[in-house]
Amino acid sequence: MKNNKKAICIMSGGMDSTLCAYMLKEQGYDIIALHFNYYQRTESKELSCFNNICNSLHVKKKYILDIDFFKNLGTSALVDKNIDVPINGIEDEVPITYVPFRNGIFLSMAAALAEKEGTQVIGIGVVQEDSSGYPDCTETFIQSMQKSINIGTKKEMHLEIKMPLVYLKKSQIVKEALKRNVPLELTWSCYQNEDIACGICDSCRLRLRGFKNAGIKDPIKYE
Amino acid sequence: MKNNKKAICIMSGGMDSTLCAYMLKEQGYDIIALHFNYYQRTESKELSCFNNICNSLHVKKKYILDIDFFKNLGTSALVDKNIDVPINGIEDEVPITYVPFRNGIFLSMAAALAEKEGTQVIGIGVVQEDSSGYPDCTETFIQSMQKSINIGTKKEMHLEIKMPLVYLKKSQIVKEALKRNVPLELTWSCYQNEDIACGICDSCRLRLRGFKNAGIKDPIKYE
Repeated sequence: MKNNKKAICIMSGGMDSTLCAYMLKEQGYDIIALHFNYYQRTESKELSCFNNICNSLHVKKKYILDIDFFKNLGTSALVDKNIDVPINGIEDEVPITYVPFRNGIFLSMAAALAEKEGTQVIGIGVVQEDSSGYPDCTETFIQSMQKSINIGTKKEMHLEIKMPLVYLKKSQIVKEALKRNVPLELTWSCYQNEDIACGICDSCRLRLRGFKNAGIKDPIKYE
Repeated sequence: MKNNKKAICIMSGGMDSTLCAYMLKEQGYDIIALHFNYYQRTESKELSCFNNICNSLHVKKKYILDIDFFKNLGTSALVDKNIDVPINGIEDEVPITYVPFRNGIFLSMAAALAEKEGTQVIGIGVVQEDSSGYPDCTETFIQSMQKSINIGTKKEMHLEIKMPLVYLKKSQIVKEALKRNVPLELTWSCYQNEDIACGICDSCRLRLRGFKNAGIKDPIKYE
């Protein structure tokens, strides 16, 4: 394919995917930003964060893809408003915020886009440890998807999926972001609110713990 | 998961996926029929074929999922009306009717649905030989996706993707279908027409060659 210095970055508007995109930009890639609207509770906030981050990152191009599949599927507290977002602390099992095979679907669509764009690199901000315990956020899974994509696309595709955060702790993510002047004040993590973060959903807890362990104050507001 | 005798069958309304669903039904599975509307040229015809086939197969349940992603992506003659469907015969290269990583996206969504439904089997009617040469229709690819899906979903998922047609020739598909009284008159293969099949696109050519080699007359009409 034509240009090896373009990377499609899957960007939610959260801290992890934002750092991932900044890291790839630092490595010299032109960033093609890809955001999925899957009608999650906080999409309106996430989308505005995504757009602001794209501006600050000077992305080459951006795609916003609507997928109403998960909304119709239900089963996750992130897309089904009849299921409460848990606020009592992180548990060992796969939580009810798990969206079935979300990263599999995101990566499959990103792969199709990569084939169209002639891009050989996809960046994804998955975090395996210090995370919510989603099965589609592990190195083994991402590596397996990379293999599947390379088998199932044209022979000119030699896709590499980069996941520079996979073994970072949240506190390291905060530190690495600050080192690169990543605008963390533009990012959003809360699963349930769009104005002031709740501070008690799993995603807020992980974020706050990361800042606390890094010895840094989170620039966004909490209830 | 609960019921091992349910299978999600990805069904386009074409001959191959219809036979695949009939074969799984014969093996004792309750069929959950899954059809994708990806705004392909002949979707209106394919959908009506799908519905008729579901009736004749007495499916347990059916899902029709709209994906406008491919339409927005373009790049394939099947979804982009600015690109002509080739009519001059099947070539060696991946043809312009190839939709980037289509089966990867379909299988990823089917996997999410399987996780929701507690289903451990997906059926797909891919044909590796005697086919259009799409990279996402090979046994190696489907096996790799099966592995990726099992890694990237909850540990209770032990998904098996069945592809009983993968090594059949089109003539064998016709014969196997007739053996099982599959209503081939209800199926549609043409890439470009919705009323009377063109007979000259790759898909019509493959179908007609299959009937010819099987020594049987295709029950549908051609121009």
